[in-house]
Amino acid sequence: MNPSVSIIMGSTSDLPVMEKACKFLDEMQVPFEVNALSAHRTPDAVEEFAHGAQERGIKVIIAGAGMAAALPGVIAASTVLPVIGVPIKGMLDGLDAMLSIIQMPPGIPVATVGVNGAQNAAILAVEMLALSDKELATRLASYKNGLRAKIEKANKDLAEVKYNFKTN
Amino acid sequence: MNPSVSIIMGSTSDLPVMEKACKFLDEMQVPFEVNALSAHRTPDAVEEFAHGAQERGIKVIIAGAGMAAALPGVIAASTVLPVIGVPIKGMLDGLDAMLSIIQMPPGIPVATVGVNGAQNAAILAVEMLALSDKELATRLASYKNGLRAKIEKANKDLAEVKYNFKTN
Amino acid sequence: MNPSVSIIMGSTSDLPVMEKACKFLDEMQVPFEVNALSAHRTPDAVEEFAHGAQERGIKVIIAGAGMAAALPGVIAASTVLPVIGVPIKGMLDGLDAMLSIIQMPPGIPVATVGVNGAQNAAILAVEMLALSDKELATRLASYKNGLRAKIEKANKDLAEVKYNFKTN
Amino acid sequence: MNPSVSIIMGSTSDLPVMEKACKFLDEMQVPFEVNALSAHRTPDAVEEFAHGAQERGIKVIIAGAGMAAALPGVIAASTVLPVIGVPIKGMLDGLDAMLSIIQMPPGIPVATVGVNGAQNAAILAVEMLALSDKELATRLASYKNGLRAKIEKANKDLAEVKYNFKTN
Amino acid sequence: MNPSVSIIMGSTSDLPVMEKACKFLDEMQVPFEVNALSAHRTPDAVEEFAHGAQERGIKVIIAGAGMAAALPGVIAASTVLPVIGVPIKGMLDGLDAMLSIIQMPPGIPVATVGVNGAQNAAILAVEMLALSDKELATRLASYKNGLRAKIEKANKDLAEVKYNFKTN
Amino acid sequence: MNPSVSIIMGSTSDLPVMEKACKFLDEMQVPFEVNALSAHRTPDAVEEFAHGAQERGIKVIIAGAGMAAALPGVIAASTVLPVIGVPIKGMLDGLDAMLSIIQMPPGIPVATVGVNGAQNAAILAVEMLALSDKELATRLASYKNGLRAKIEKANKDLAEVKYNFKTN
Amino acid sequence: MNPSVSIIMGSTSDLPVMEKACKFLDEMQVPFEVNALSAHRTPDAVEEFAHGAQERGIKVIIAGAGMAAALPGVIAASTVLPVIGVPIKGMLDGLDAMLSIIQMPPGIPVATVGVNGAQNAAILAVEMLALSDKELATRLASYKNGLRAKIEKANKDLAEVKYNFKTN
Amino acid sequence: MNPSVSIIMGSTSDLPVMEKACKFLDEMQVPFEVNALSAHRTPDAVEEFAHGAQERGIKVIIAGAGMAAALPGVIAASTVLPVIGVPIKGMLDGLDAMLSIIQMPPGIPVATVGVNGAQNAAILAVEMLALSDKELATRLASYKNGLRAKIEKANKDLAEVKYNFKTN
Repeated sequence: MNPSVSIIMGSTSDLPVMEKACKFLDEMQVPFEVNALSAHRTPDAVEEFAHGAQERGIKVIIAGAGMAAALPGVIAASTVLPVIGVPIKGMLDGLDAMLSIIQMPPGIPVATVGVNGAQNAAILAVEMLALSDKELATRLASYKNGLRAKIEKANKDLAEVKYNFKTN
Repeated sequence: MNPSVSIIMGSTSDLPVMEKACKFLDEMQVPFEVNALSAHRTPDAVEEFAHGAQERGIKVIIAGAGMAAALPGVIAASTVLPVIGVPIKGMLDGLDAMLSIIQMPPGIPVATVGVNGAQNAAILAVEMLALSDKELATRLASYKNGLRAKIEKANKDLAEVKYNFKTN
Repeated sequence: MNPSVSIIMGSTSDLPVMEKACKFLDEMQVPFEVNALSAHRTPDAVEEFAHGAQERGIKVIIAGAGMAAALPGVIAASTVLPVIGVPIKGMLDGLDAMLSIIQMPPGIPVATVGVNGAQNAAILAVEMLALSDKELATRLASYKNGLRAKIEKANKDLAEVKYNFKTN
Repeated sequence: MNPSVSIIMGSTSDLPVMEKACKFLDEMQVPFEVNALSAHRTPDAVEEFAHGAQERGIKVIIAGAGMAAALPGVIAASTVLPVIGVPIKGMLDGLDAMLSIIQMPPGIPVATVGVNGAQNAAILAVEMLALSDKELATRLASYKNGLRAKIEKANKDLAEVKYNFKTN
Repeated sequence: MNPSVSIIMGSTSDLPVMEKACKFLDEMQVPFEVNALSAHRTPDAVEEFAHGAQERGIKVIIAGAGMAAALPGVIAASTVLPVIGVPIKGMLDGLDAMLSIIQMPPGIPVATVGVNGAQNAAILAVEMLALSDKELATRLASYKNGLRAKIEKANKDLAEVKYNFKTN
Repeated sequence: MNPSVSIIMGSTSDLPVMEKACKFLDEMQVPFEVNALSAHRTPDAVEEFAHGAQERGIKVIIAGAGMAAALPGVIAASTVLPVIGVPIKGMLDGLDAMLSIIQMPPGIPVATVGVNGAQNAAILAVEMLALSDKELATRLASYKNGLRAKIEKANKDLAEVKYNFKTN
Repeated sequence: MNPSVSIIMGSTSDLPVMEKACKFLDEMQVPFEVNALSAHRTPDAVEEFAHGAQERGIKVIIAGAGMAAALPGVIAASTVLPVIGVPIKGMLDGLDAMLSIIQMPPGIPVATVGVNGAQNAAILAVEMLALSDKELATRLASYKNGLRAKIEKANKDLAEVKYNFKTN
Repeated sequence: MNPSVSIIMGSTSDLPVMEKACKFLDEMQVPFEVNALSAHRTPDAVEEFAHGAQERGIKVIIAGAGMAAALPGVIAASTVLPVIGVPIKGMLDGLDAMLSIIQMPPGIPVATVGVNGAQNAAILAVEMLALSDKELATRLASYKNGLRAKIEKANKDLAEVKYNFKTN
């Protein structure tokens, strides 16, 4: 089955962060591919990737990068597909990567998520794909309900915890 | 024709920024609606809006807000549609709004664009819609080619400018 | 006895910080309740909570949250009770949470304390309740005197320490 | 009628910001007093003020200050009344004042509002007073409803504006 | 005469800043070219430019860009020539551009100058060229001596100014 | 009469800020000199100045500089006299200058004041000189009392202002 | 022998930082005292201390504090002695303390040193005292020469280290 | 063989960072020297070094420093050679050093690299030297190709990793 999401990271050292995106897509049964391509070390490969992505059937691109994180913007420059950027924490608490990704010039947006927010990037990708895929929309809705259930359960557990403090 | 994009702003004072999104959608012939709803002043209306959006045929939501910009995240909390957040510059150069929008917890992403990046938010929305709308994809591609042409033209103009400096 | 303070946290992982609030209220003999509710994961529950709090006899709400910390503001949007916000340190040294909580729009204040300042939030709540509860005011005054005594004692201990440095 | 709220500012140059607090209290019919006292220029007066406030019938203190804004914290140090701090924008976008006010040590909280948020400080004060004053609670609730009405009206006005963009 | 320095800017709106580089090179009689190329709007042209620069006789590249300033890094990725980056002030006081340019990954440096520091970029370029061009080295040394003379003159003027203050 | 304070600024464009120091010293009848010397443009003159200052009878040095403000630290490196640094606002709200001046390595302190705080630098210089000059100490004490009087007067004026708001 | 320097810290937990000041004063044979006094927990003691310091023979005050570090400024408000402030690192990398100490209003300077810069504070104090104490001036000059010797020695050691890298 | 690159660091404690520059120069067979000189502790030695560097045959200077990092700028002030600055991480995530190095006044540039970017500084130095040294240019090109190969290899390894996630 052809991948519909392409996950790109600037360096394989970003894998521990980016694999949260892989896991979510897997859970949602969305076929994906993973590549390490660097705007600064393999610019031609990035260019080639970005130009060819749509034709290969890719629908959404998730690009994670740290520091002077040019990768998401450079990919966005060569495709009409939506590109989601994940700032990866390194120096400066990830603020350098965040600003490098989010502050794009008019005409070339990158949909940026929070620092190390690879899972959220994958959820965003699924939200986009679910616009024209009803089965996926159902799986997504069920995931979102699960979130709610989890915190409701946590709240109940908390109710018992709290009696350790409260004696009145 | 039903709107497929819904533009929300936290206050009508955000209109000068947000109307760049309106203009782009109009240019791309994407039907849209505009509303002023505040996570802090009309929370019930926000909730009702977010819960009902998908059913009313909305595909993508663009939410602009400044300062402690809770609006995009709160909408994202009550819908499975993709939500694009626009941090609006006020105090602190818009960094307060950017961090309030982008740093979402796992499970509830907001696709954040740069400070005052309403046009980019609209382009992102069109990129998402174009995934399943070939005519729109064509219009988007033509817009992106136009950007390139514009800067190529600028480059030529610059070639003449530069001879004002260069005398060798 | 009905709780007069309600402590809300966005996630049970915030408990180690927020329990300093619990402990202080307990010490001041102020009845309280603790809940985990998320503006982003259980928005309806938050709304319901905020709308009903006053009627259930709650006087002050303490809400702790990290990152894009919408919880305190969203609660403040649906109640006339004073809401105290506690920014919880996560990414970016807690500055993201601080700005997300404090920079509220005109009309909907959140009384914000320092990063991880759950104990101070509880003291603030007690100061508010003590305005119309003389016994509580007495306990609070006695606590504040204790602080002074503690640092005066520390100062005396320091007097001995210092002779390890000073030889003239 | 004795003032129940005391508004303090570090310098009379802060008046244009702080008078938004005065106006709101006036609108809510809450008696108040206004003073200029500086933690750095009139420390004894601040001390005397803070020690005597409760006895004179003051219930809540609002203190606005800019730069190295010690005033709110120093007042909080000498009273058991709730103190609301307003960071006033000067240098550094008001971030210096915000951090100087909000980052209080354990034991001495200041309820901090956003940069230049004097009106919100006054609303917070009214929320505290309304806990034991039913008539005031009614006026406050009516104010909060008014906020909602205002943005609902704005939203309707926007509906007409939007047809200027939308031609489909 | 072939240009030995190539000045690139991300947008013609950067010209008022970048022309300070042109003026200095002109003064030093260093032949140069000026182009507007955008990493985000004309990525292929940037790539082509960067790959061909060395062959065309370019020795040093000066690249100015604002916001998510990918241009200098992307050029550096496709050339072995030294690339000097100029962060251009836009939003966030130019800090976004500075971090986007300076925080390059290992292997692909960009020699970054201060915000809007186009003149310094040109001086740096001349310093590099002067390593193997004695005549240019002489002109550069003479410029640097001029700087000293200018501030020594200013100091003398100040001596007269100061007697307006000093009455002892 | 020999100057006992030496005011140095990195550029004559800093004069509008630094002349507040001149005025205060003049008011206190402290003889001073003013020079423009740049750590980056006239390093030898700075070195010579710093080495000779003590011998010429200078007691305290006030050095103002903006951006990468090396001047105060470089002077401090070549003298045993106390050096007071004044960060001058330029780019980045003066935070660049502040950090460049204050974050000195162990062994070479600079007494740093707030952004554009030239008057405070002069007061600090007078406080140091007054340690061994009783007449100056008296003038300083009288100045400090004046500050207090001024704000007490302002407070009285405010009392009249406030009745414009207050109608109860 | 009466102390001529008074070291104050906001909390005994600041001792590990502040004792570097003690050690340097000890080394310079300057008599000093150490106290823990808090602007927020023992304001009266601070006031009393600051008012009486000059009369007790104190010449210079060193005040260290973290977070919303009001202590140095509050002391400066009640004395004509020079006050040196030491921002102590806690939250936010010590930037909160730095801004709280350095950004003083006109009239009340605090001579601020770098984050955790207690040793530099002590050197600064000695520089002030040495203005009228020749023996101390000699000891200070000898310390400063020692610094130079230390780094010159380090440079020589480095010369040997470097041949581990260099093989040409 | 005479060194053509001179590596200076403000303190030997910077060696672990700066030795990455040594290693790269060694790998490129560029003769270099290493010295510890401090703008603040050995200012005369710095001055002497900077003035004499060109005559001794040095072509490029790399200067690393932390905190109030004056060293690179001070060296740049006394030479016409290109100076590359390396901000070294200490307090404040290295942002203090970065701003102290990069924000140079017009006339005296420092080519600044990212925080702890010593290796990139060395690459930049080699890029400058390679402008007039063909053999070095060949070695540099071969190194840059190696980078590309490395990430291409990493990408292939990733291809296998990814099948751990992907089960469709």
